[in-house]
Amino acid sequence: MSKSILNSLLSIGQQTRTSARQLAVLSTAERDRAIECIAQALEKDAEAILAANKADCLAADIAPALFARLKLDADKLAAGIAGVQDVAKLADPIGQMQIKRELDTDLILERVSCPVGVLGVIFEARPDAVIQIVSLAIKSGNGVILKGGQEALQSCTQLVKTIKEGLKNSAVSPEVVQLLTTREEIRSLLELDKYVDLIIPRGSNSFVQYVQENTKIPVLGHAEGICHLYVDRQVDIKSAIEICIDAKVQYPAACNAVETILVHENIAAEFLPSAVAALQSAGVVVRLDQASHKILGDTKITLATEADWDTEYSDLIVSIGLVASLEEAIEHINIHGSRHTEGILTSDAKAAEVFMADVDAAGVFHNCSLRFADGFRYGFGAEVGISTQKMPPRGPVGLEGLVTYKYRLHGQGQVVATYAGKSPKSFTHRDLI
Amino acid sequence: MSKSILNSLLSIGQQTRTSARQLAVLSTAERDRAIECIAQALEKDAEAILAANKADCLAADIAPALFARLKLDADKLAAGIAGVQDVAKLADPIGQMQIKRELDTDLILERVSCPVGVLGVIFEARPDAVIQIVSLAIKSGNGVILKGGQEALQSCTQLVKTIKEGLKNSAVSPEVVQLLTTREEIRSLLELDKYVDLIIPRGSNSFVQYVQENTKIPVLGHAEGICHLYVDRQVDIKSAIEICIDAKVQYPAACNAVETILVHENIAAEFLPSAVAALQSAGVVVRLDQASHKILGDTKITLATEADWDTEYSDLIVSIGLVASLEEAIEHINIHGSRHTEGILTSDAKAAEVFMADVDAAGVFHNCSLRFADGFRYGFGAEVGISTQKMPPRGPVGLEGLVTYKYRLHGQGQVVATYAGKSPKSFTHRDLI
Repeated sequence: MSKSILNSLLSIGQQTRTSARQLAVLSTAERDRAIECIAQALEKDAEAILAANKADCLAADIAPALFARLKLDADKLAAGIAGVQDVAKLADPIGQMQIKRELDTDLILERVSCPVGVLGVIFEARPDAVIQIVSLAIKSGNGVILKGGQEALQSCTQLVKTIKEGLKNSAVSPEVVQLLTTREEIRSLLELDKYVDLIIPRGSNSFVQYVQENTKIPVLGHAEGICHLYVDRQVDIKSAIEICIDAKVQYPAACNAVETILVHENIAAEFLPSAVAALQSAGVVVRLDQASHKILGDTKITLATEADWDTEYSDLIVSIGLVASLEEAIEHINIHGSRHTEGILTSDAKAAEVFMADVDAAGVFHNCSLRFADGFRYGFGAEVGISTQKMPPRGPVGLEGLVTYKYRLHGQGQVVATYAGKSPKSFTHRDLI
Repeated sequence: MSKSILNSLLSIGQQTRTSARQLAVLSTAERDRAIECIAQALEKDAEAILAANKADCLAADIAPALFARLKLDADKLAAGIAGVQDVAKLADPIGQMQIKRELDTDLILERVSCPVGVLGVIFEARPDAVIQIVSLAIKSGNGVILKGGQEALQSCTQLVKTIKEGLKNSAVSPEVVQLLTTREEIRSLLELDKYVDLIIPRGSNSFVQYVQENTKIPVLGHAEGICHLYVDRQVDIKSAIEICIDAKVQYPAACNAVETILVHENIAAEFLPSAVAALQSAGVVVRLDQASHKILGDTKITLATEADWDTEYSDLIVSIGLVASLEEAIEHINIHGSRHTEGILTSDAKAAEVFMADVDAAGVFHNCSLRFADGFRYGFGAEVGISTQKMPPRGPVGLEGLVTYKYRLHGQGQVVATYAGKSPKSFTHRDLI
């Protein structure tokens, strides 16, 4: 790696850190006002933004699905600006008093939420992401270093220019927002552990994994979404089929889409024929294990291999396997699932309870589609990502993923020696909230 | 690394994981009962435990401070057993409903705390730690793989044997507790990312850093405690000196002990002579920067070098430097501090507020000793460690550091398609708690 890139990144990191510290202590009103200034600037520069995006689109040689994400028309920009204004309206995630406790007379402990510091966000060629990420970052009092997909370079450059112009009218320094423009800078960004507190990588599984393996900075993200639906022996078959279709077809590339359907063998003969027919008419390619293949007796359907149980298709493909019991389904999921979101379809409340307790995943669902696993649907207002790590934040993460807390202890000269040794004074430990 | 060690560890990991899954779904009463059984077994086996420890102590060739930690007499064991019983009395950290929200009619989202899974705890040659760690692990529904310092091998072996005997009388499988006995196994433990969910390393800074750099498993711990006290220009000098002494002398090897005292230049001539004299009579070696050295005019006191500002002495040594302003103190701390615990001593409430807002650390203290930064003193009942990472858990971590949460979504056949596309249904997002 070029040393000059690292040096330039160090200087960007330092600038962002300094400006973010100023941002962190601004009032709620000042931060909300800054977000409003961004919205106004985006409205004012709409023409220049759309023109920059047109240039990106003309130059882009990418698949239609990616092109749809890259393209920013007047409607999408207007929706983005409305989204910015919505973020201003969210409850302030910082300054929340989580604990207030008297340790002893005039010795008061508080735990108060505060910004993380500086975020490094690496995202796809999707210009509207810039708008959302920046507004969430400022709402939560954080500086942000952005790196968007190369195909969106002109759009991102114009957007960040406009955002910085907008911030000039506010109490927030324009330097809290920084844009990296070359791929080479990503590697250097991952080394800025002195200046960057959280990396949020978006994009392909392999990219997220690359980031996780190449930085000491905490990473919010997940590399895989291998999600299951288990169809129990007591089930409303019509509803179960609807849920299977929704969980696969509604957005097959989403991380919360179903990849494997496990079916209790007692219900298989009844469930499989109509379920497979429904999946196939919805355009889904089905792969069956030996047992379900035998039940269906349809030799045209491909057999699943061992690898299928560990595959995130991100496509209109689903594998189906039979299990002899609830326990076998749970065992399969705990081995092959990626701890993202797992569902049981059953009218047996006790089976649902066992499944939800025993399955190890960020989300355990009963009788509904896995696609509900999402920050907006959970009512978090905005989503910064989905985490499949075991420790919190886990699952869809809203603004709370961008804040941390600090302990504030207010004393009047107290020393620990008073509370130690022979005949120590006792703490009162009285909660004040 | 030997392949057979890794294989044996894989098998231990798998066993612990399986037993921990059973533990995770036991009731509060069943877990508390298991902790009670451990206390009874420890009482019953007291003689064997003390004998094993005696053998360890006879064989040990270690420094007196370490020897004091290794030695387990009847009193210390009784205190440990009382501690186990106290853990049973703590509030259950699992099964806590953190969110209950109606997303739409009959579509109810819950966020419920649950165990992390399997903990890997590597600790010093300190047998009483076994008792505390195991009871905290079982209280929080987690399996635990222990590795204690080699000098405590016989004590740890006997303790774990006794604990497993005790668990036989409870609903908890003795296999939730495992003891590793050789140093070589540590490396393998760090590779068990499929079976171990959290590593808690205790011990030297370099050891904790080694662990952080050699595992993909999340690590709860901190490598350094470089903590500061800033003596502002408006200050009660007598109280400030008492706090400086307590923060250094009460337990110099603790991570929350003060390493550097920053003094506002306006108060230096008044503060330094008596403060330095008091520190010296308490046995503290003082290192001064140029400016404070000049004020004191005592040529026998060593000058601090640049390296001093980044050193955790863990000993009766303190560096002292002058600053021209509150801002300079904050800047120094944000550069040289390890984000552990930082204090300001001042009678100026506004200065305290600025310091506590701007200093980036897990703990920011006003007019009290840094040594209060501790889970017991904070009223957490028990402490599993102190975290200096930016993301939660941060600071002293009680039982909450051993639990995570999962989202449970209870539906009645809902699919996402209903809430998407043209004329989508709206979510109600109504909080039920």
